Amino acid sequence: MTDSTDLTEDGSTSDNAARILLAEAMLDAIRSVSVDGLGVTRPSYGAAEGAAHGILARFGEETGMVVRTDEALNTWVQLPGTHPDEPMIVTGSHLDSVRNGGNFDGAAGVVAGLLTLRELQRGPALARTVAVVAFRGEESAWFGTCYAGSRALVGHLEADMLASRSPESNLSLGEVMTSAGADMAKIEGQTPLVDVGSIGHFIEVHIEQGPDLLSQGVALGAVTGIRGNRRYSDIRWSGEFGHSGAVPRTLRHDAVLGVSEWIQAIEQEWISEQQAGADLVMTSGILSTDPLRHGVTSIPGAVKTSLDIRSVEHSTLERFDRWVLDTAADIAGRRGLQVDFGTMIETAPAVIASEMVSMIVGVAQGLGQPIVALPSGAGHDAAALASAGVDVGMIFVRNSNGSHNPDEAMETSDLCAAVPLLVGVIRELGQV
Amino acid sequence: MTDSTDLTEDGSTSDNAARILLAEAMLDAIRSVSVDGLGVTRPSYGAAEGAAHGILARFGEETGMVVRTDEALNTWVQLPGTHPDEPMIVTGSHLDSVRNGGNFDGAAGVVAGLLTLRELQRGPALARTVAVVAFRGEESAWFGTCYAGSRALVGHLEADMLASRSPESNLSLGEVMTSAGADMAKIEGQTPLVDVGSIGHFIEVHIEQGPDLLSQGVALGAVTGIRGNRRYSDIRWSGEFGHSGAVPRTLRHDAVLGVSEWIQAIEQEWISEQQAGADLVMTSGILSTDPLRHGVTSIPGAVKTSLDIRSVEHSTLERFDRWVLDTAADIAGRRGLQVDFGTMIETAPAVIASEMVSMIVGVAQGLGQPIVALPSGAGHDAAALASAGVDVGMIFVRNSNGSHNPDEAMETSDLCAAVPLLVGVIRELGQV
Repeated sequence: MTDSTDLTEDGSTSDNAARILLAEAMLDAIRSVSVDGLGVTRPSYGAAEGAAHGILARFGEETGMVVRTDEALNTWVQLPGTHPDEPMIVTGSHLDSVRNGGNFDGAAGVVAGLLTLRELQRGPALARTVAVVAFRGEESAWFGTCYAGSRALVGHLEADMLASRSPESNLSLGEVMTSAGADMAKIEGQTPLVDVGSIGHFIEVHIEQGPDLLSQGVALGAVTGIRGNRRYSDIRWSGEFGHSGAVPRTLRHDAVLGVSEWIQAIEQEWISEQQAGADLVMTSGILSTDPLRHGVTSIPGAVKTSLDIRSVEHSTLERFDRWVLDTAADIAGRRGLQVDFGTMIETAPAVIASEMVSMIVGVAQGLGQPIVALPSGAGHDAAALASAGVDVGMIFVRNSNGSHNPDEAMETSDLCAAVPLLVGVIRELGQV
Repeated sequence: MTDSTDLTEDGSTSDNAARILLAEAMLDAIRSVSVDGLGVTRPSYGAAEGAAHGILARFGEETGMVVRTDEALNTWVQLPGTHPDEPMIVTGSHLDSVRNGGNFDGAAGVVAGLLTLRELQRGPALARTVAVVAFRGEESAWFGTCYAGSRALVGHLEADMLASRSPESNLSLGEVMTSAGADMAKIEGQTPLVDVGSIGHFIEVHIEQGPDLLSQGVALGAVTGIRGNRRYSDIRWSGEFGHSGAVPRTLRHDAVLGVSEWIQAIEQEWISEQQAGADLVMTSGILSTDPLRHGVTSIPGAVKTSLDIRSVEHSTLERFDRWVLDTAADIAGRRGLQVDFGTMIETAPAVIASEMVSMIVGVAQGLGQPIVALPSGAGHDAAALASAGVDVGMIFVRNSNGSHNPDEAMETSDLCAAVPLLVGVIRELGQV
């Protein structure tokens, strides 16, 4: 798939057309091993994910790169630098997908990395080694754990994550990794698979999973931070069931009225936080009266709901979370309801250094490439590396219809616009 | 069960003790044919309901009353008056129950009627005939249709009601009535089973299904009207699913935020209506995100809910209903959501003449029996008779824990307090 293309580094129109052809060929090849009739399905550490890694490895071998696989079965395609002891510059993303997902969430970043590596290979040698990594098991849809491959790389794949089971197969993540051929000794010991200091920078290209770039009419974004979250998946409001006609208003303990007041109050506080300059999103994605007891003529005595709060700022998460709990307690108290928030699961925000954002924006401006700065609402492998101390950057590519569904729609030309930008950033970082 | 009791009409303490013993014996007998391990279950036109009717008929026969069954299998126990051509005075209620219901919803009113008839039998003869009726099939829980027996009596049991099927047996109401032995010719022709003009008054005793009497510390209530309702059982709000972290607030079309704002707005309008003097209750008893698509990290794109609005005033129902629809359309428009209210089912409020309320309150005051006037939020057989032009009255008996559940709890002494009241009202009405 490479002989017919002749990529150079000057970014001319014909070169860009060739870039698009190659990107589409690679994306089509990855899609072809994972079509499911609706979209694509590449389960974490499953056969279709493995086949996609094989495509990447063959491309690396055929183009004269160094290809290797680490103990967690992440695939590395490397272009050695003239100073191999200097910390590497790494780009890449993941190759798994959710069930009936789209082809671009993850794979687009790996393909952008390979196109970049190919262009760097044809230019003057860099001092630092450059690598494209394809991580395994990024999607939490399969085992509840996200970033399995990148967490394993930095020694952060914890025992309870390895023990988490697929609701479908009832196999644990650890069992499925072992079956796939992973070498579990270091992983289980939480020993990093490389000296983390040997990774100087990690720059991930990924489709945007929201509509911000689309609504602003800009193909690329420089990510300013990866939102952390506080997540309550099973909040229970309880009051008192009763006859919908026979109980007067002031004697009701209606859980639906309580939860509605609470959600409305949260939305108003969200708007206030944003007006005060905070980065914040919140979602109550699950909301349900008790299907075994509810009815059109019954005052609802029980509602369950969920809450997902996200921000790039730890202080915002903490402040808003406290406000949400206090407000719920206040509303429940006034209405004679009980509210139980259950377990909270927290994922810390990932810091992206402002120097990295500035460099990405600066290189784009030098190329005449429009770009906007924006936070990432979704989590990414970059967050796992950032938490281990690696300097990370992220470039978002415009995408329609969100992600995790067969309708996600990225223009290949938008993805290819990221390649000269990534080439430029790596060249700037690549000298010693 | 009658020989050991010696009831007189003077209402002395020992007579009241005898009344309580007899009431408990009758309620226990009815309970005994319908225990289900949790509460009682007497399906409409089923065997347990039939057995309860048998207990009533035997009591009537043993005490020398006239017992008959009409074409709809309602049981009548009558004390003939000296002027049999004058319109009857009828009291009674129903003997069916919901599944796992309580023993008092319906049966208490029949028992109060029998105790009243027994006391009238021992006093001076009345000009007008007095009857206790036990209606069949009042509960809508079995076939979706309420008041089957009393509707049939007045010729209002419509073809679509007879055709409605039990979700469990898949048999229609008409089929089950036929199997039980009902004579369907007149019923299907919507011909009244009696000349409606021959029923001068219908006074129903029933447990209160709300907590008003309990909270006011009064054993009895004089019902001022039976609330009608407008009911939407399947309202659909739809917006757009999306990633909970990646879509900014202003680009979301979150159905949960929309429905919460709507429910909050309705509650505020409800309070305003009540402050302006309107009789109104409202309940959104069912509220649920789409279980096939919802998730903690997914912006909810679909919510279904229900709404039950009740008032004794037709104008309030109409005004509030319009406000609810307009407000939903406004909120949906502002948020980029769609809302579909589906089918509305209306039941008209039943009028209780103020003269009847005054008479019940006046007789109670004469007896030194505390009583309060209050509307009925739930529907009753009295509404079917009122809609046919019968003058109706209702007396509520204090009851804990609502109805339609095994925990409903009425003190027999409260029920027996209704007997002298009913005796007094019937005596006042019973002369010509």
